[in-house]
Amino acid sequence: MTHFDLDEYLAERRAVIDRALERYFDAQPGHDHKIWRAMRYGLFPGGKRIRPILTLAAGELFGGKQKDLLPFACAIEMIHGYSLIHDDLPALDDDDLRRGAPTAHKVFGEGMALLAGDGLLTEAFRLMSAPQAVRALPADLALDLIHEIAQAVGGAGLVGGQAADLEAEDQEADLATVEYIHVRKTGALIHASVRVGARLGGAKSADLRRISRYGEYLGLSFQIADDLLDHDGAAPDRESESGRKERRKATYPSIVGAAQTKRRLQELADQSLKQLSSFGVEAEPLRALTCYLVRRALPEASNSTIEEMCP
Amino acid sequence: MTHFDLDEYLAERRAVIDRALERYFDAQPGHDHKIWRAMRYGLFPGGKRIRPILTLAAGELFGGKQKDLLPFACAIEMIHGYSLIHDDLPALDDDDLRRGAPTAHKVFGEGMALLAGDGLLTEAFRLMSAPQAVRALPADLALDLIHEIAQAVGGAGLVGGQAADLEAEDQEADLATVEYIHVRKTGALIHASVRVGARLGGAKSADLRRISRYGEYLGLSFQIADDLLDHDGAAPDRESESGRKERRKATYPSIVGAAQTKRRLQELADQSLKQLSSFGVEAEPLRALTCYLVRRALPEASNSTIEEMCP
Repeated sequence: MTHFDLDEYLAERRAVIDRALERYFDAQPGHDHKIWRAMRYGLFPGGKRIRPILTLAAGELFGGKQKDLLPFACAIEMIHGYSLIHDDLPALDDDDLRRGAPTAHKVFGEGMALLAGDGLLTEAFRLMSAPQAVRALPADLALDLIHEIAQAVGGAGLVGGQAADLEAEDQEADLATVEYIHVRKTGALIHASVRVGARLGGAKSADLRRISRYGEYLGLSFQIADDLLDHDGAAPDRESESGRKERRKATYPSIVGAAQTKRRLQELADQSLKQLSSFGVEAEPLRALTCYLVRRALPEASNSTIEEMCP
Repeated sequence: MTHFDLDEYLAERRAVIDRALERYFDAQPGHDHKIWRAMRYGLFPGGKRIRPILTLAAGELFGGKQKDLLPFACAIEMIHGYSLIHDDLPALDDDDLRRGAPTAHKVFGEGMALLAGDGLLTEAFRLMSAPQAVRALPADLALDLIHEIAQAVGGAGLVGGQAADLEAEDQEADLATVEYIHVRKTGALIHASVRVGARLGGAKSADLRRISRYGEYLGLSFQIADDLLDHDGAAPDRESESGRKERRKATYPSIVGAAQTKRRLQELADQSLKQLSSFGVEAEPLRALTCYLVRRALPEASNSTIEEMCP
């Protein structure tokens, strides 16, 4: 197995995404207006940029070019940013802090934060349909990817998951409900990030099915890992952090306990990695990403596949 | 001049739009879930459906077919619906009633209403990119129309206008600021409704420019008419009504007075109608719509063009 330096890879990729996002905002005529500053605030300094990095990695696995992948990768990050701003609002999680900094509504006021979320969501679709972004792509592919992303984050996806989460608050949720929420609230956009990259790269039939399942397992394991980190209370590099008002959220460990959650997480990570077995060294970034996302919540992972593939 | 029965036309068109929206929601697998019910609540019973009717009317002027026009018309109405739900939230206008009924957040709670707005905006883009909706269109045209709509409602459009409106609250606004807000907050989506219809119908160069200016003048006059109705306090068929907490909004009449506002409205309506002069009887719906939207705020209109064209 070749040595793959994930930290270096993530830092380089994050810089690429950040530069592309900066360029987008710098290019807007009114970019010094409060609304654009509020949108930018929701994106910077930003977290791990996992979703757009997955888009790039999945695309490059099939030979996709960065300039074709970046508009969609950035749009996906903008959608993620919108969901965090709205999630933090008093009407939902009512968080004062995110990644140690005041949340958007604490800085810009509730109304402006609401609009900044709306703006990021809209600008994401504007970016994905921009002539300069999709010129090199077949128009029907671009259209289809926009549809796939909208499906992943609409009423049957992220928004539906958020709504189910809200309804489950302070109720006795069962495991099926928690999985329903996780698959939509977190899983769907991660799944789409991977699939959109692969489709932009030109993945077809069997390869696309494999990479799609990889994204599906990864999406669910990502949220379960978050649940575990929340449960353990130790989360050195969490995306969302601190300031959370205590509301009871439906989580995996709260229903089946930490031990069974860890087993489930290992199983999902295992499944995710197995989908990559037919690919060679070029799938190393995707493998390393699974290992990284799972290991942060599972340092003692003993599952054979994980041990073998995450040395 | 042929007799054109606007009331009959509006009622028939509204029914077409409503049926198409109903079909969209009925077709969603989880359509009985709370989030879908909240989205639907934001759309039904609905107002005048002016925007989607403009899309149909502008499209049919150039021979567009209803089945090609409807997905975009419905998406535009969904975007309008999202903007109303979010606008009514306590973080913005804090309205308890709309069209005489409790606002979405009063019925479903703030969190669910926030998500319902997010959902409607997202579903609009999903609908515009849906294979069954755009199959008969060139993919690059569909992509371009999605871009145009996103531009009209993003940071440089509707969201930017809302943000400017929020910033102008309780400040001394000048006329330039009010026009800046109006053009974006209301004008941009009305303008896009007309343009998207015309482009779907196949309007080219000079015709598209004319119809585009028609939409621009109409959009601004629509909001100024609303300002006047607010100012006069008599608004029998307003879109948004009652329950409004008293916040000072930047309006035309509050700056230049009712008399000058009426003159400006007549001038804009005049300009809007002049753009249609090269079209024959087939532009009657668009003419009648301008007359209708302006007359409700200007019953005594004496401007010669309006008198001649709005008999």
